[in-house]
Amino acid sequence: MAQQTLEARVAAMEKEIDRLKAIEAIRKLEHAYSFYLVMWMPDEIMDLFADRDDVTLEWPEGMFFGREGLQKFFGNINPKKDPEFMHQMMHLSDVISIAEDGETGKGRWWGFGAMALPMGEAGVMQALACGIYENDFIKENGTWKLWKIKWVPVYSGTPATGWVKPDRVARPRPQPGEGEISVPEWWDSDLPARGIDYAYPSGYILPFHFKHPITGKETSEVGRNKRVKGV
Amino acid sequence: MAQQTLEARVAAMEKEIDRLKAIEAIRKLEHAYSFYLVMWMPDEIMDLFADRDDVTLEWPEGMFFGREGLQKFFGNINPKKDPEFMHQMMHLSDVISIAEDGETGKGRWWGFGAMALPMGEAGVMQALACGIYENDFIKENGTWKLWKIKWVPVYSGTPATGWVKPDRVARPRPQPGEGEISVPEWWDSDLPARGIDYAYPSGYILPFHFKHPITGKETSEVGRNKRVKGV
Amino acid sequence: MAQQTLEARVAAMEKEIDRLKAIEAIRKLEHAYSFYLVMWMPDEIMDLFADRDDVTLEWPEGMFFGREGLQKFFGNINPKKDPEFMHQMMHLSDVISIAEDGETGKGRWWGFGAMALPMGEAGVMQALACGIYENDFIKENGTWKLWKIKWVPVYSGTPATGWVKPDRVARPRPQPGEGEISVPEWWDSDLPARGIDYAYPSGYILPFHFKHPITGKETSEVGRNKRVKGV
Repeated sequence: MAQQTLEARVAAMEKEIDRLKAIEAIRKLEHAYSFYLVMWMPDEIMDLFADRDDVTLEWPEGMFFGREGLQKFFGNINPKKDPEFMHQMMHLSDVISIAEDGETGKGRWWGFGAMALPMGEAGVMQALACGIYENDFIKENGTWKLWKIKWVPVYSGTPATGWVKPDRVARPRPQPGEGEISVPEWWDSDLPARGIDYAYPSGYILPFHFKHPITGKETSEVGRNKRVKGV
Repeated sequence: MAQQTLEARVAAMEKEIDRLKAIEAIRKLEHAYSFYLVMWMPDEIMDLFADRDDVTLEWPEGMFFGREGLQKFFGNINPKKDPEFMHQMMHLSDVISIAEDGETGKGRWWGFGAMALPMGEAGVMQALACGIYENDFIKENGTWKLWKIKWVPVYSGTPATGWVKPDRVARPRPQPGEGEISVPEWWDSDLPARGIDYAYPSGYILPFHFKHPITGKETSEVGRNKRVKGV
Repeated sequence: MAQQTLEARVAAMEKEIDRLKAIEAIRKLEHAYSFYLVMWMPDEIMDLFADRDDVTLEWPEGMFFGREGLQKFFGNINPKKDPEFMHQMMHLSDVISIAEDGETGKGRWWGFGAMALPMGEAGVMQALACGIYENDFIKENGTWKLWKIKWVPVYSGTPATGWVKPDRVARPRPQPGEGEISVPEWWDSDLPARGIDYAYPSGYILPFHFKHPITGKETSEVGRNKRVKGV
């Protein structure tokens, strides 16, 4: 093969590796943000952002811009570092895209977690909160940084009552009998149910597609599943 | 080093890069599926699948095959786009494996999330649902696509009552005193507990193994942890 | 370009690819651990660790070392494989770092999930549990293995009562009216709220930054969002 061709292959690979590295850099940056949010570490959070006037925080309650906007938002939450404060926003199920020129990127994440927000004399507001992020990233002097955050809530509720409004929650249905499978009326599957009740407390372990990553041996779920009725 | 050898190294790298790209492509595909499921976007979901007769959906309630099977299943859920419907199935903790020939792949994910399923006059059924996916992927004309979905439920329960059957839930135990650590009877650790109560509302921040990803500076948790008793 | 230079580029790429492969290997190893924990598969779990005396498990309740320590800990939990036992610890939001020499690595994860722990005659203890892992990894004979686990709890609570102590839970506030947005007193955003109520049951779908990964077409959320007030 000609030298020229080999060089072209090397150049193509370098570009691909840069894209893969960019994905991992953005993933790490966003997950670091997730961990800095829990107990609120404002300096660390603000240092994740690019140094640009068009840095943007877009919440349903309003928008903040630039370094000063970051300070106005992140600097005003839990300023006394109250240990009863907790803001868990785990970042989950990333979809990350890198621009063709490799200079900017975008990512979508679920945000999900447990909140404990002190409300003065009223006590601590407790909620299970969830929303979606669509964030922008930019490479500044060779380093990937957070550029814009856009967040919309999907639901929030107390652990006990959940997300559906109380007057809309359905009355509990009778539980199906053990091993019974209920299907909706429109259901018209090509093969019927096998009548196996897989769920807790059946003890069923969904077989793994992969052998043990270190020993390379089959794992033990097939033997353990023999006691599950119908398997 | 001989030209031949350099070329062999380039060829080996190209194969490795293809595998890494395949992993990211499958991750993105599956996570897009997760986001299309929430408010049920059936056209987008069906377009994630390969165009093959052996496309398969395997639910405990029955199996569906091919393009027609996809339509029978995905087309019949929330057909009126009721906004009270929500089907959050976050895809989590991926284990992705690419076949040696690079043409097919497999992945395991947790599926976990909040459900709100309108049931006509009865109201909206609300549940925290969880299961495991073992899915297959295939490269079709150079593009990775969903091929087969297999799902089994692990648990599902209302936010208030959880997953253990009510008559089996243990009576609450007395909480340990502040800073007390309780260990089971069989416990025989090589070093004893340090007696630190790390959990909320201690304010403890587990030290980070990584310095700040942008500034490279130490983060501030060590100082903040000084107020936690025993640290 | 000189042959020497091309070889240097190839060597640099090989190092980068090794780092990307190490990240994926560690991710897969840790997520396999997550899936082996659910129904407790002690042999599979112990086989994930390096064969070293300094293998370490660090829990708040005490530490275990080496192969014997693994056996003392993992071998003593759910030894009768009680199907009422469930220990779901999903591993989430990874931050993975590889040492410069490529021989060791570290990772931080959320651990989050549903617990069902049989307590003899008292019944089954049910909890939603969450903590953080900071784990170490080492390459042994070319294979990445778990080396050290450090875990601290962040919160644990019953599904009904959550994580805030009952006597500290805030009294419920009146819900804002439909489409109303409440902001805290200190709030001083650069742009005000647009007054859109995005949350369930609005039916709002946060627009995707990416076109459909297979068809490349725009997805349908813009049309569906037209019914949401203010959009």
